[in-house]
Amino acid sequence: MSPILPRDGRVEAGAYLYPVRVYYEDTDAAGLVYYANYLKFAERARTEMLRRLGVEQERLRAETGLGFVVRRCSVDYLLPARLDDDLVVLTRLAGLGAATLDIEQEVHRGAATLVRLSLAIAAVGRNGRPQRLPPTLRAALLSLNETTKMVTAHAR
Amino acid sequence: MSPILPRDGRVEAGAYLYPVRVYYEDTDAAGLVYYANYLKFAERARTEMLRRLGVEQERLRAETGLGFVVRRCSVDYLLPARLDDDLVVLTRLAGLGAATLDIEQEVHRGAATLVRLSLAIAAVGRNGRPQRLPPTLRAALLSLNETTKMVTAHAR
Amino acid sequence: MSPILPRDGRVEAGAYLYPVRVYYEDTDAAGLVYYANYLKFAERARTEMLRRLGVEQERLRAETGLGFVVRRCSVDYLLPARLDDDLVVLTRLAGLGAATLDIEQEVHRGAATLVRLSLAIAAVGRNGRPQRLPPTLRAALLSLNETTKMVTAHAR
Amino acid sequence: MSPILPRDGRVEAGAYLYPVRVYYEDTDAAGLVYYANYLKFAERARTEMLRRLGVEQERLRAETGLGFVVRRCSVDYLLPARLDDDLVVLTRLAGLGAATLDIEQEVHRGAATLVRLSLAIAAVGRNGRPQRLPPTLRAALLSLNETTKMVTAHAR
Repeated sequence: MSPILPRDGRVEAGAYLYPVRVYYEDTDAAGLVYYANYLKFAERARTEMLRRLGVEQERLRAETGLGFVVRRCSVDYLLPARLDDDLVVLTRLAGLGAATLDIEQEVHRGAATLVRLSLAIAAVGRNGRPQRLPPTLRAALLSLNETTKMVTAHAR
Repeated sequence: MSPILPRDGRVEAGAYLYPVRVYYEDTDAAGLVYYANYLKFAERARTEMLRRLGVEQERLRAETGLGFVVRRCSVDYLLPARLDDDLVVLTRLAGLGAATLDIEQEVHRGAATLVRLSLAIAAVGRNGRPQRLPPTLRAALLSLNETTKMVTAHAR
Repeated sequence: MSPILPRDGRVEAGAYLYPVRVYYEDTDAAGLVYYANYLKFAERARTEMLRRLGVEQERLRAETGLGFVVRRCSVDYLLPARLDDDLVVLTRLAGLGAATLDIEQEVHRGAATLVRLSLAIAAVGRNGRPQRLPPTLRAALLSLNETTKMVTAHAR
Repeated sequence: MSPILPRDGRVEAGAYLYPVRVYYEDTDAAGLVYYANYLKFAERARTEMLRRLGVEQERLRAETGLGFVVRRCSVDYLLPARLDDDLVVLTRLAGLGAATLDIEQEVHRGAATLVRLSLAIAAVGRNGRPQRLPPTLRAALLSLNETTKMVTAHAR
C-alpha cells in the first residue's frame, strides 16, 4: 500500500507510517527478529511521529520538564520478520487523557501484519509525577486523527 | 529475601530466581533501563530456568526440532531500574497446555517489584507448527510447581 | 555537506553516505551513544552500500554460499553522538584482495567527524574458509572508487 | 582452566576473569554472536573488575566527577561464539598513565581464544577534560598486576 516511504515516514489515513529495514543486529540465531527488538522499532516510530508533529523530545524535556514513560506494553507476535525485510510501523493515537496517551502500533511487511503493540504512555515531569500535556502537543496529536476524519469525509 | 544468588539462579517457593546486573548497555539517555531490555532479562531467566531443568534449547531443537516462540507478551512497568542495580528475575509457570506455556515473570530490586511480564509461549516444530511438549520436559516444568507445594506443606 | 540523504543513502565522491538517526535505544546512562552501537551503525551502512551495489547478502549466501566476516575492527572515538542526532556514516573501500575487503568508515555530524572505523573483512564460504569474491561483486565494489576518479577528473 | 566462575568473577594470575553466557539476544541470523556484542561483554567485565576493586562507577562519578571514556578500541575476531556458549572474559591492565588506562581483554571458550580487544581509556571530569585518577584507584588497579608478580615469584 505504501511502497516507498521517506526516512521520516508519512501520515496517512490517521496513522503515522514509518519504515524500518531489518539488519543483522535485529535478528537472532533462530534467523528471525529477536522479540524485544520490535519494541525498538516501535519506539523509533513514536519518536519520529512526535518529531513530525514538531516535538523534539529532548527539547521538550529541557523546556518543560516533560518526558514520556511507557507504563504498559502488550505485544502480539503474529508472524516473524527476517533479515533484509523492509517493514512499515503504523502508529495510531487510540486515546488521549490529561497526562496519558494510548497508542496502537502494527509492524507490517507488505500486506501482512507481523506484530501488534498496544501501549499506555504517561507524561511525567522531572519529579516523575504525572504532568498535563501542553495544549500545543495535544492539538498536534489530535491532528493525526483529524486526518482520518478528513480522509473519511473525503471518501463519502 | 534472596541476597546472594549464584550465576545460574535458584528455585525457591515455586519460582526460579535469576540475578541480573544492570550495565551501561542496558540503560538509555533517560538514565534508566531501556523498556525493551527487560524482555532480554526475562528471556535470559527463562533460558537459565530451562537449563536448570536440564533443557539446553539448542540441543532440544537439534534432537526433536522443538523450539519456543513467544506469541504474546504483556509488560507492566511499575518502577524503573538504574545503572548498577542488582536485580532478580522471578519466573513462574502459570499454565501448561499440550504445546503451550504460560509464564509469569517479575523483575525485583530488593523488596520492590519493578516490572511484571506475562507471556504466552508456543512450542513449535521445524515447520513452525505447534508441537507437543515431550513428557520429560512437561514433568520438569511441573516439578517447579511441586516445589511450591512442598514449601507450602512444610510451612504448615 | 549532504543535508538531505534518502533512506538508502547516496554515493558521493567515492564514498557511500548513509543516514542514521540516534534513538533512545542507542544511548546509555551517560547520555551519549553507547560505544558498541557505532558498530551497528557501521554495519547498517555496509549492508545498504552492498544493496545499493545490487548485492542482497542473504541471496548471495543462498546462491553462492558466500558471506562476509569481520576479522578486525579498529574504532577511534573522537567526539560523542547524542540522542536525536542526525548522523551520516561514510563508507569507503580502502583495499580489495581476492577474498578480503578493507573498509574505512566515518560517523559524521554535520562537519564534525565523531568516530572512525577501520575494518578487515573476509569473504568466506559455507565451510567458513576464504572464498574468492565473484567478479560482478568485485566490479561493483570497484565502481565506488571509479566515482572518485571521475570526480577528480572532472575537477581538473 | 577456570571451570566454575562466580557471577562476579575472580582475579587470577594478574587478570580479572568474568563469566558470560551467550543468549539469543547476543546472536544474529548467521547463528553467531553479533560482532558489536563482544564490546558489551568486555564492558561488563571491566565494570565488574572495577567493582571488585571497590569502585562503583556511578558513585565515583557522583563523588569525584570522574568517568571513563573509551578513546580507541581494536578488536580481533579469531573464532566465533555461539548460542549457549559459556565464555570467560579476561581483563588485564596493560598500561596506566596519569589520566589514562590501557586495557587488554580476551574472550575465551575453554582453552580457545575467540576475540582479543585492546582499549585506550581516558579518565575525564564533568567537563569532559582529562582528570587524574585518584591515588586509591591507581593503587587498586596496580594491585591487579601485583597478583601476577606474586604468582610469578611463587612459581620460582
